Amino acid sequence: MKSEIERLMVEDQIDLLWVTGPAFHNPAMVYVTGGGHVTQADFFKKRGEPGVLFYFPMERDEAAKTGLITKEYDYSALEKYLKANHGDQIQVQIMLYEQILKDLNFQSGRVALFGLIDVGTGFEIISGLSRKFPGIEFVGYKLDGLLLKARATKEPEEVERIRNMGKITVRVADKLVDYLTHRTVKDGILFDEPGQPLTVSKVKKKINLWLSEEGAENPEGTILSLGRDAAVPHSAGSPDDFFREGVPIVFDIFPCEEGGGYFHDFTRTWCLGYAPDEVYTLYEDVLDVYKELLSQIEVDQPFYRYHKLTCDLFEEKGHPTILSKKGTQDGFVHGLGHGVGLDIHELPYYHQTNGDKNNLRPGTVFAIEPGLYYPDKNIGIRLENTFWMNPEGGLENLVDFPLDLVLPMCS
Amino acid sequence: MKSEIERLMVEDQIDLLWVTGPAFHNPAMVYVTGGGHVTQADFFKKRGEPGVLFYFPMERDEAAKTGLITKEYDYSALEKYLKANHGDQIQVQIMLYEQILKDLNFQSGRVALFGLIDVGTGFEIISGLSRKFPGIEFVGYKLDGLLLKARATKEPEEVERIRNMGKITVRVADKLVDYLTHRTVKDGILFDEPGQPLTVSKVKKKINLWLSEEGAENPEGTILSLGRDAAVPHSAGSPDDFFREGVPIVFDIFPCEEGGGYFHDFTRTWCLGYAPDEVYTLYEDVLDVYKELLSQIEVDQPFYRYHKLTCDLFEEKGHPTILSKKGTQDGFVHGLGHGVGLDIHELPYYHQTNGDKNNLRPGTVFAIEPGLYYPDKNIGIRLENTFWMNPEGGLENLVDFPLDLVLPMCS
Repeated sequence: MKSEIERLMVEDQIDLLWVTGPAFHNPAMVYVTGGGHVTQADFFKKRGEPGVLFYFPMERDEAAKTGLITKEYDYSALEKYLKANHGDQIQVQIMLYEQILKDLNFQSGRVALFGLIDVGTGFEIISGLSRKFPGIEFVGYKLDGLLLKARATKEPEEVERIRNMGKITVRVADKLVDYLTHRTVKDGILFDEPGQPLTVSKVKKKINLWLSEEGAENPEGTILSLGRDAAVPHSAGSPDDFFREGVPIVFDIFPCEEGGGYFHDFTRTWCLGYAPDEVYTLYEDVLDVYKELLSQIEVDQPFYRYHKLTCDLFEEKGHPTILSKKGTQDGFVHGLGHGVGLDIHELPYYHQTNGDKNNLRPGTVFAIEPGLYYPDKNIGIRLENTFWMNPEGGLENLVDFPLDLVLPMCS
Repeated sequence: MKSEIERLMVEDQIDLLWVTGPAFHNPAMVYVTGGGHVTQADFFKKRGEPGVLFYFPMERDEAAKTGLITKEYDYSALEKYLKANHGDQIQVQIMLYEQILKDLNFQSGRVALFGLIDVGTGFEIISGLSRKFPGIEFVGYKLDGLLLKARATKEPEEVERIRNMGKITVRVADKLVDYLTHRTVKDGILFDEPGQPLTVSKVKKKINLWLSEEGAENPEGTILSLGRDAAVPHSAGSPDDFFREGVPIVFDIFPCEEGGGYFHDFTRTWCLGYAPDEVYTLYEDVLDVYKELLSQIEVDQPFYRYHKLTCDLFEEKGHPTILSKKGTQDGFVHGLGHGVGLDIHELPYYHQTNGDKNNLRPGTVFAIEPGLYYPDKNIGIRLENTFWMNPEGGLENLVDFPLDLVLPMCS
């Protein structure tokens, strides 16, 4: 939680928190600013002091909307630097930051640095600053850094935003079910209009439209994969595939708030009309494991414990898993889940680690997604919901949507 | 152009091109892969050799769709590294890349590095690799790097995609004009339903919906700013503002293809019903300058020449500019324009530089956006279109949309 930042700065011996980049689609900056339209900003927070947001004059209104203490970049200095460096933008950036650090009276210590920017440029700028300030150590650590640890537990207001994205997700899933089950069927193929079989690309377009109607964005796309594609976990699906009765559909949707805010993660596997026995049997295995997990998950336990449990349960049912057979593409081939927030994948993770940063602490929000994949059989199955470990240590499902495999056709 | 990469590698003495990150909303990776759904990949191209895309097994289908030579990350090595480093992901990443570089038989030379990743993490990984390979120099340079220079000139296929985004933009602008001019007006305020004045936030939602219907995304939002907001160039507008007759509206829209592909940039300034004399006079000044620019812009000239011309023309008309009055917030307060492509702002830039990278070479696609801003008068005006300097050296406007200030109300 944001309120933990100060404590984490002490614990991790961080003297300065620095977040850079735009205030949209840039989780670290969205976190500290609340989002918005600022296209380039820098947030500096010294330990024990409030943060300051630097902005360009043209963006003064958008900077002010963040409610933070704000300060203009020194424009006249920028002009001077540009001239002195014959337009070498990297040198100019380094000089600008050098001046800011000096103005902050910060010339040695440990800086935790976050923000999505181009990696090579970032390396050049931070290397340059390191040379100018040999007493400063810059650290980040995507999977373990200070800001990522803070973001791992959510304040109630953040949970409400993820829950609201869940409501949007469920309304879109409802529309999708309604749409699919009301198509006409000929020889097992769904038709949109006479002579026009319904394609994955057409349905994806509808999904984006429904999300847009709800004010949500879908920057990373939707997984809508049929049959064989469904058996490859991250296959997004083939645009020209037809929907057919009895073929498993993996529908994995992960929309976010407008401007790159909070995500929600949700997966269902459906068969239209009927499910072949083999699909049904595998589906029951996944559903059993899913239910068993929900009955066992407890607060403050390592996420890995339940990943291990999932593998054990699947193995008892005769399926290979990544624990029993490294690199397997059959059976349970991925991790149990991941935290969900301003990134679709964030802390806590299912990985085995020494610390407690992957523990299911009160305030964590995470997706659980057991699944089975058999590419040779053209079958893939996955069930996923996003949960909140609430402050009382109770596990709360953030959405309410049926877990049925078969969607009977209404036409 | 992509075909220039090899030549630029020789010119810039780059031995290896390395692009990292997801294949969506990550311009460098979209450029080399063509986009898609791969959530994490690394593209390595040695000078004189074809590039290779590294991917995780779960994403094998999506990696294959790129048509590139592909190779799985060494999963078993990853497991081994994780154990050896007690889950220290940064060390694991460094070891993984170390192995890839060794496998590529690349242990010294100059690496051009691109891709949107978290800056602190990127710095830690690249610093670690630098220590392991003291003979390797990593360079990026956001505004001047190899890949950015290649991207500055577009192949006809890229221009068609930007042109297509322009068509979408114009259809959305048409819908917006139609929508605004068909509202009812009472005491100068536009109403959507009786008792419900039309707000900026409501109209922005419609814009997103129209874009979604066209299959486009709007990740950076739309500027729809009225009156005083319009006078601050990057103000996105106030959500609760009402639309009123006679108040200037700056509509600046910059949508992109689904998944973070090519952008288009377009701005109009409108007054609904009528324009006050003061607005009309300033608008005429902007339109004059816009037209004069189009009659003067020639191929292979520095973009800066026309920025300077714009400032001269505005100054002749009595307006301050950033050249005559540094840091001014009145008059012409920003640069003339910028290249448009997989980034909304990319090469060529209007800045004065020594080289030719900001020249309007054949193949460049760029936006021109003269404007005048008077915050004290609550007036802001900007006109913007996106142009292609075609291979014959002709300047082509990529959209066709009227430049009228006044939109007469139809109700």
